[in-house]
Amino acid sequence: MIYEVDGARTDRVDVSSRGGPYPVLVGNGLLRRLPAILAEWTPATRVALVTDDQVGPLHGDEVASVLGLAGLDVVPLTFPAGEASKTRKSWSILTDEMLDAGLGRDCVVVALGGGVTTDLAGFVAATFMRGVPVVQVPTSYLAMIDASVGGKTGVDVKAGKNLVGAFHAPAVVVVDPEVLETLPRSRRAEGLVEAFKHGAILDESHFDSLTADMEALLRADRDVAAARVLESIRIKADVVSRDEFEGGFRQVLNFGHTIGHAIEAASDFSLHHGVAVAMGMLAEAEIGERLGVTTPGTRARLAAALGPLERAAREDAPPTGRIDPSRALTFLPTDKKARSGRPRFVLLERLGAVAEGEGWTHVVPDDLVSDALARTLAGV
Amino acid sequence: MIYEVDGARTDRVDVSSRGGPYPVLVGNGLLRRLPAILAEWTPATRVALVTDDQVGPLHGDEVASVLGLAGLDVVPLTFPAGEASKTRKSWSILTDEMLDAGLGRDCVVVALGGGVTTDLAGFVAATFMRGVPVVQVPTSYLAMIDASVGGKTGVDVKAGKNLVGAFHAPAVVVVDPEVLETLPRSRRAEGLVEAFKHGAILDESHFDSLTADMEALLRADRDVAAARVLESIRIKADVVSRDEFEGGFRQVLNFGHTIGHAIEAASDFSLHHGVAVAMGMLAEAEIGERLGVTTPGTRARLAAALGPLERAAREDAPPTGRIDPSRALTFLPTDKKARSGRPRFVLLERLGAVAEGEGWTHVVPDDLVSDALARTLAGV
Repeated sequence: MIYEVDGARTDRVDVSSRGGPYPVLVGNGLLRRLPAILAEWTPATRVALVTDDQVGPLHGDEVASVLGLAGLDVVPLTFPAGEASKTRKSWSILTDEMLDAGLGRDCVVVALGGGVTTDLAGFVAATFMRGVPVVQVPTSYLAMIDASVGGKTGVDVKAGKNLVGAFHAPAVVVVDPEVLETLPRSRRAEGLVEAFKHGAILDESHFDSLTADMEALLRADRDVAAARVLESIRIKADVVSRDEFEGGFRQVLNFGHTIGHAIEAASDFSLHHGVAVAMGMLAEAEIGERLGVTTPGTRARLAAALGPLERAAREDAPPTGRIDPSRALTFLPTDKKARSGRPRFVLLERLGAVAEGEGWTHVVPDDLVSDALARTLAGV
Repeated sequence: MIYEVDGARTDRVDVSSRGGPYPVLVGNGLLRRLPAILAEWTPATRVALVTDDQVGPLHGDEVASVLGLAGLDVVPLTFPAGEASKTRKSWSILTDEMLDAGLGRDCVVVALGGGVTTDLAGFVAATFMRGVPVVQVPTSYLAMIDASVGGKTGVDVKAGKNLVGAFHAPAVVVVDPEVLETLPRSRRAEGLVEAFKHGAILDESHFDSLTADMEALLRADRDVAAARVLESIRIKADVVSRDEFEGGFRQVLNFGHTIGHAIEAASDFSLHHGVAVAMGMLAEAEIGERLGVTTPGTRARLAAALGPLERAAREDAPPTGRIDPSRALTFLPTDKKARSGRPRFVLLERLGAVAEGEGWTHVVPDDLVSDALARTLAGV
């Protein structure tokens, strides 16, 4: 859908949600048009602008000034960048800062940043006076494609990631691919893994376009990025529109994540999320092939596409020690998608299609899981 | 609506909510029928039974045993009784205890207790893995009539009560008036204030029945209690069915609460909530009369009915020091129902009807507010 903001053409994808549909706007330069977007999509005049201390200097100050010039009352709130901030403590601090600033039910939270910011600020908005609107302004591929669409918010606790949170649909999601230019190349690579996942589960042609555009996407070419991000958001929006609360079809988005999360946890989160999910996709493709559910050769095609991404994602990462497969296994049953303690897996039918299974997931023999996990961790 | 649980007749009120209607079941002896109720209204077989250390010995152990005998896997969780426990810290502890017990998305939280428990355990359920079902089993008049119906959950923070929370509709609310027998008389009186409020705003005949049955209600006569509690729940259910998220009509429930909360805060919460709300109702009736909005004599009728309740509620309370009216005033503008800092008041048209005003609320001249507050605190 084509849409106008301040006279400039913009792409728009609508996402269904229990509280009514919300739009995802995609267009280069939208950050400068935030006042017009806020005016259209929220009734609020007071804004809690939440960002981290990396994104703040890059884009937060400019956004605060643009909003301020438009007459909005902006309360800028910053937290230390990184997953370590995605805690109940940060959530408490941000909430208290909003209360100290005298913000009330008539405010809006603008979450400007990557997935940690959209999840954390989204949870703050979900619970501030029992819920105020949130405007998601994702600044990373990962947050644009994944975190900011679908209404999931939350924080990590000792027992695991995202175990505390809420579904809180945004008032509007504002995606400005220009900001990707300030994102490190390794973070770009990491986020693109989720785009490939969208292609892998539901759209082979998206997968192929991403493969063809890999280099342009990694250097954040704004037009290529806008096109591919829009495609990926459409896929995600379709899925969450069909199943907002992950009771059924939405589970297909977990492809690669059951094992991916276990690997991530077993690395004590030293491994990038995207790298762990890429490994999880390979392991789960292997499981599917060995069960005869997934077309043979699928894992090889995934590996060919994801290999360059994985290398780029690891470029600036500290070397990760060997991850113990048997330790990773222990993180499976506590996965929150598990029912009564038994992990279930999303499996591909082929590249671009998920095998329906029983409610879109499959129970897999334990030895097959441990085998695929061990081989993937060994880089076989 | 008449309804059957385990072959026993029970009253049932349905409440509309965004996620679909949920039932409030009212009947003596329902606590012993919880297994059948859970089986009908939730898919869960694992139960987090949340209660405080006062209600636990009185009813929690029995409920745990009844659920256990029915084959449910019960994880009993207890916190120290009292409003001081309604914090983010208690919420964190309960959440972690559920995680430590290995509970997952397929569990249900059963909140057994007064308003602190229903609010706190409801918020735990709202945010545990982004939301698991909660079954509200209120054990006080206040929680039966007010807290457990309507889906409001939350905790207190330094800046004020209930400033952090979520709307989380229960799967089912189970009201067993028999348990009121174990409630101290002062707590009964406190909770009945909210029933009178329901009568005052929407149903004069409910108000009159409550007045006539006052003594039976204060001694927790189970049949009288069942009848009056059912009436009061019907009123609350009607209101929240019309307006789940407090955007409009639901605000009528705030009658007495704008000033009531300010008085409560100014007493540093040494005053019972019910007593503070009773005073708030008198003050707000006075404001209405002086503005010519409320029929003259309304405040006097309220005072006559609420007087005995207020005395009963104070019976076992430590004496409260003098509450400074000007200090109470400072708590008004931070009330979360305020828009852009200005408090608004729900005013009666007459006993049993709210004046429509502008969106069911009125802006009131400051001197009228401070005058009514001062006179009410002086007991005039």
